Formats: sequence, C-alpha cells, structure tokens
Amino acid sequence: MTQQCNSTEIASLQVNGDRLNDTLKTIGAIGALPNGGVRRLAFSLEDIQARTILQTWMEAAGMTTTIDTAGNLIGRYPGRFPHTPALATGSHLDTVPNAGIYDGTYGVLAGLEVVRTLHENNIHLDHPLELIVFADEERTMIGSKAMAGQAPLDPDYYAHPHYAPLPPSLAAIGGDWERLTASQRQPGSLAAFVELHVEQGPVLEAAGGPIGLVTGIVGQRRYSITVAGQASHAGTTPMDMRQDALVAAAQVILAVNKIGTADNGDQVATVGSMKLSPNVVNTIPGQVEMTLDIRDLSNDRLDQMVATLEQDMAAIAQATQTRIHLQPKLRNEPVPVNSHIHSTIAQVCEDLGLPSTALPSRASHDAQIMASLTDMGMIFVPSDDGISHAETEYTSPEHCTQGANVLLHTLLRLDHHYGCTEEVVAAVSAI
Amino acid sequence: MTQQCNSTEIASLQVNGDRLNDTLKTIGAIGALPNGGVRRLAFSLEDIQARTILQTWMEAAGMTTTIDTAGNLIGRYPGRFPHTPALATGSHLDTVPNAGIYDGTYGVLAGLEVVRTLHENNIHLDHPLELIVFADEERTMIGSKAMAGQAPLDPDYYAHPHYAPLPPSLAAIGGDWERLTASQRQPGSLAAFVELHVEQGPVLEAAGGPIGLVTGIVGQRRYSITVAGQASHAGTTPMDMRQDALVAAAQVILAVNKIGTADNGDQVATVGSMKLSPNVVNTIPGQVEMTLDIRDLSNDRLDQMVATLEQDMAAIAQATQTRIHLQPKLRNEPVPVNSHIHSTIAQVCEDLGLPSTALPSRASHDAQIMASLTDMGMIFVPSDDGISHAETEYTSPEHCTQGANVLLHTLLRLDHHYGCTEEVVAAVSAI
Repeated sequence: MTQQCNSTEIASLQVNGDRLNDTLKTIGAIGALPNGGVRRLAFSLEDIQARTILQTWMEAAGMTTTIDTAGNLIGRYPGRFPHTPALATGSHLDTVPNAGIYDGTYGVLAGLEVVRTLHENNIHLDHPLELIVFADEERTMIGSKAMAGQAPLDPDYYAHPHYAPLPPSLAAIGGDWERLTASQRQPGSLAAFVELHVEQGPVLEAAGGPIGLVTGIVGQRRYSITVAGQASHAGTTPMDMRQDALVAAAQVILAVNKIGTADNGDQVATVGSMKLSPNVVNTIPGQVEMTLDIRDLSNDRLDQMVATLEQDMAAIAQATQTRIHLQPKLRNEPVPVNSHIHSTIAQVCEDLGLPSTALPSRASHDAQIMASLTDMGMIFVPSDDGISHAETEYTSPEHCTQGANVLLHTLLRLDHHYGCTEEVVAAVSAI
Repeated sequence: MTQQCNSTEIASLQVNGDRLNDTLKTIGAIGALPNGGVRRLAFSLEDIQARTILQTWMEAAGMTTTIDTAGNLIGRYPGRFPHTPALATGSHLDTVPNAGIYDGTYGVLAGLEVVRTLHENNIHLDHPLELIVFADEERTMIGSKAMAGQAPLDPDYYAHPHYAPLPPSLAAIGGDWERLTASQRQPGSLAAFVELHVEQGPVLEAAGGPIGLVTGIVGQRRYSITVAGQASHAGTTPMDMRQDALVAAAQVILAVNKIGTADNGDQVATVGSMKLSPNVVNTIPGQVEMTLDIRDLSNDRLDQMVATLEQDMAAIAQATQTRIHLQPKLRNEPVPVNSHIHSTIAQVCEDLGLPSTALPSRASHDAQIMASLTDMGMIFVPSDDGISHAETEYTSPEHCTQGANVLLHTLLRLDHHYGCTEEVVAAVSAI
C-alpha cells in the first residue's frame, strides 16, 4: 500500500460519483438510438470508438494499456510490487442490438473510477491492478474465453448468419486470430477478479438493498422440445380423434412452470420461443418446437428438474397421443464465487453502511469464465424494474456511486488479503 | 320423367364408376405437383384449363353451358318441363395451394357422371338439371355468394396481398365484375341444390359407413386471443415476479380444449396459430397472439362455449397477472340441411344397400350459401385418415362410385318430390 495515506484516510476514501456518472453518459452516447437506448455491437465502429476513449482515459489515470490477441483492452495500474499477480476488475463495453447504457459499461467505468480515485490520491496497491475490457461479451465471450484458454480455435464455431466472421472482427479491434492463444493467462498470473455489474433482474430493488452479494453464477441448460402430433382440419376432425401438438405443448409449458416454482427455490425455468407447424387458423397444429432454459446454482437441482420434466412429458405424450422429445442444446456449469471475496464484499457493505442482499447471478458474465483462472467475486447494483437489454434499463446515479465505492474498498481489502510481503514477491518473481 | 325407361329400369340405374374415376385422374393431372398433390388456384391457367375441359364434357353430355358474371360455369341438362325451377348439383374445381384431387372436383365430376348416365339412357327429368362449377370456393366463395346475392360489391373486400384483385381475375374466367349482380338467382328459380363432397374428416372412415348424411353445415366463429404479460430476462427474473404471457396462454389453450370436449358434444374448438413476442430462448414471452376457431351446428352451444371461455380467461388473467382479450374475427351462422332432402338421401342409401352415417359438415361449402336460395342437402363420402388439403387426400374409387350413385338416385327422387304437373308448369311460366 502506498505510504502517502494512512489507514484512516484509506478507510474513508470515496470515488467521485459525479465523474463516474458523467462517464456513463459519455460512453452511453456512443451508439445512442432514437429510443433512448444504445446499440454498440462488438467489433462495430461504435465499439471501437468507446474502447478508444477508454484507452485514453486509462492512460490519463496512470495505467499502461495493451490489447491482447483476443481483443481484450487491458489497462494496468502499477502496484508497489510489480511482479506479483495482479488484482483485476472489468467488464465489457459491447452491447446487444437494443441495449441500455449500464450493462457491462458500468462495470468498466466503475473500475476506471476506482483507478482514477487511487491515482489522484497517489495511492498504489501492493498488487498491480488491471482493468479489463473484455471483447464481445454479448455474443461469443471470445475475450474472457481466450484469456482462460477456453476459446474453441475453429473459426466456424463462432459463425453466425447475422455477424461477420470472427478473425477479421478481432483484427478490427486490435486482436489477432492467428495468435489467439497468446492471450491466454497463466494460472497464478492473477490474484483475484472482481466484476461489478447491474443486476438485470428485480431482486435487489424488491429487497430494498442497493448492493448484491453474488453467491455464484447459475448453471444454465438449454434444450429444444419437439412435440409431434398430427396436423388435420380444425373443422372436420372431432375432438376425440385429434393428436393436437399444441394441446400437448400447453401441458408441457405448465409442467416447465411447475418445475420452476417447486419448493420455492431459486431455480428458474422458461419456455421462451415456440414454432408451430403449420401455424394456420383452421388446422390443428401437427408439430410444435419450443425452447427450454433452466438455471440454478446447483447441478443436483438442475438434474432433478430435468428428470421431473421428462416424467411429466412421458405422461403428457401418452395422454395426448403425441411424441415429445427433449434435446440438450447448451450446458453451462454453475460457478460459485470465492467465499473469501464474497465475505469481503459483505464486510465492506457493512462498514460503508450499505444494506446488501445475497443472490445468485442468473445471467452470464465474463466473471464466470475468469473463475477458472483465479478467485472470482461479483458485486451487483439494482436495475429499476429489473429491466435490462432494453432502452429502459436504469440504475440510479446514487446506486452507481455506491457500487463503485464497494468495488474500491473490496479491491483495497483484497490487496491486503493477498498481501505481498517481500518474500512473496521474491518467490513469485522466481517462478 | 322420360318415357324411355320404366320405373324398374330407373331404380336399377347406375353410374359408370370407371368413367367417373377416369375423369378424376384427368382433371387431377391439371396442376399436378411433384409430390402427388395438385395446385389449381382459382383464376389460374390450370383452373381455366380444367373448367374448359369440363365445359366440353358438359356439352358432349347434352348440356347447354353458360358462364355467369360471377364466373360460375353452369351446365344445364334440359328437363321435360323447361320452365320449371331447376334441380341443381355442383361443387368447385379450384384448389388450395397444396391439395389433393378430390376436394370439390369430385362433386363436380360426380354431377357430370350423373348427367352422362341420364344422357346415355335417354332419360330427362321433369326439371332441368343444372351442374354448377362455382368460382373460387377456396378463398372468396365469390361464385356461390354472388349467386345468392351475398357478395360484397366493394372490390377491396376481397383484396389480399398474395392474390390478384378480383375484377381482372373474374374477367380471366369469363365473369364480369361490373355486372356481378346479374349472376344473382331469383328465389324460386331453383327447386333444390344437392352437393356431393369428400368428408375431409375421419368420421365416416371410423364409422365404417361409406355415405355421410350431412345434418347441416356448422356455424363457425373465429377470434383472435391476445395475452399481454411482461417480457423480461429468462435468467434474472425470479419465478414469482413474472408475468409470463406464454404460461397464461398455455392455460387458455387447455381451456379451449375443455370447451371443445365438454358434454361429449359434436362441437370443435381449436387454437391453430400462435405468435410469441419476442420469441427468443432467453426472454420470458411478453405477448402471445393466438387464433381460436370454434364450430357447432347450434348457435346456443357456440354462445355457451364463448361464455365459458371468457370466464376461464378472466380467472387465468387474474392468476397469472396478465391481460387476456378475445376479439371476434369471423362469424358464419349454422346452416341446417333441408329435412326432406336429408331423409331422401337416407332412403336412397337404404335402398342401395349402402350403410350411412349422419354427421355435420364442419368445413365450409358452397352448399351453405346456396341454402339461402333453395332447399339444400349434402352427401359425403369418406376421406382416408380424414386427410384433406394435402397430397395424401384419398377417397377410394369404390366410394367415389357409391357416392355418385347416391347423388343420381337422390336427384331422381327429388325430381319426383318436386313433381311438375302441367298445372305447376303453367303457374311457374306465368311468374
């Protein structure tokens, strides 16, 4: 820890909330839509513009900046012991097509505000402090995945009819597909990673606490459900001679809702998308395809949800004379946060007088990838009405400032926890 | 009745089944699709080709032919008393985009076969006998509606993005939009109308009887149902904070099925089409639009179905915190058949040794429009697996022949029932 401040001064350190909220407006204007939202797709001109401004701000705040081969923009604020593993924070600046200004961007700018606060107070942590702007969080997560050595090396894996191929896209933001593996960080190269993000859900607002203590990032499984019946004339086919795929599908939807609400647990289960065939007013639906998305922190719970649903589907298929098939499409394992980081965040909230609420993250974040590299924690701030990925996404300036202060003090305490004695420094340098 | 045959010879008269089934193949080849089906849209080249061949066949069978201003092709086989109202039969030659060869075409060709049989036996009924090929049954029903004076006179009423405007289409088949009302038949100008058609449903096949005694054409009501909830993130929105429009819609679908199956009645109720918004895997559906189609012979029953559904929807809306709205889109009144014609068909079946089954027609037919002009009856023959409007539509040659014989003898008996004494003839001529 720098010697310019004593511990009392450190304990009362606060970010500049006005400055933080000004930067949110400045970056939010890049790719602004007429509806008040923002569209700043990964690799687009707007993405590059936002990253470029961030880079200049990082450098003005005393950071050295690099762009790794996966397109991650990394600012590094020197620590007192430059060869120790870095503490890291960060998030993303890219958005979905019709986004608000907070998702991802807030975590990046709060990290910048933390560094600015340290820099203007002449404070350097023992550890180097990295602020990472991950490349393309919203679609491929190529930035964090490459950093963790989890990115498939086949460009076709990332192909999508609506998006340009990944290699030239990476080149556009300063990455290098051919040297992608060079972006992989070695185990031990980071001491910890903490991501600050808007909740994107209604739990914190309902709980009345401004700070979310994330307990983990839920496991997520996606399936397609196909219900096959027999299309026939909606007028001429008597009710008792039908194999109506939609009547069966309706029962499946309610069975999905039942596994989502069982035991008053934290799990969620959603049918979000449906396609009927032939989907015309005067024909009994012959086939229905649906998507299923289930999430929970516990793999046991997810297994049990699937088993219950499969039993229900078999009974529904028999009763409706249809065939129902469940096909796995995606499986992301649950990722717990590091318990020490979690309790550190809780303690910081208590010391700052900020009520906090423990909750899982039910959305994906770069942090869940980073957890395979280093100790990981996450902090949430409330989203008004739980809305995200929409122009009405909103987090109050007060909550934004409070979250940044929690991030600041969490990093300060982790710096102490992962304390770098000269002996540790020497040992790490020798690796 | 012609004097060339005695009543015993008349009673044993039979159509030429091979000839009938050959004509089905000939017309079925016009617009044949690679999948074995047929596409002969109203007003298309294929429709005109089929009508042209029919016209030559009609004339070769001793009929005079006209095309009225609504595009109806009418063959008239002279009766012994030319000024009496005509007995009429007929159906349509146009098809849906992917059709089988029987729907409509069978009724036209069976009518032709009846006239051919009369003609080659030198039999003339007392009444003139008309064979009507109605224009565009599958979409606008312009032919029968104009004949009954029910066709809206605003061309925009018939406008559809996928189809050409009606006035030039009518001109293409010999009609005349500007003089449409000239096709209207006066009350009393027809003695009766009998349509022979494939069932397009599975009832006859299941009953094992080759002949369907149609009791009436069901009333049909169509609605759109809109379920409005709140779209939100499928991961971050806890189950107890959702307003999932699809979960509500699933309950509505089951409520629709319940009103369709109540009391083991003949009514049907179908949700055939659905549209979700935003319809993506990781978002809770915020809105669902569905179609509802209900049919029954009794308006009281239909009223009761709607009332029950509205009660159910209100309860579902409250339980799911959604708003559910039912919007009427179409209402066709039930049309009973003439009881004398119905019992005549039943008696003919008994005399021919053909088992018959009474059933409603749950599909629309030109006959329901003709019922406003004259006494109407309908005869059905079985559809294999109940399939229609598909390339697999099939009715066996034997059933086709049996149905045509029932039509022949029904018309012979109706000729007698609506008997034309010279006094009647004189009275009619004086009108």
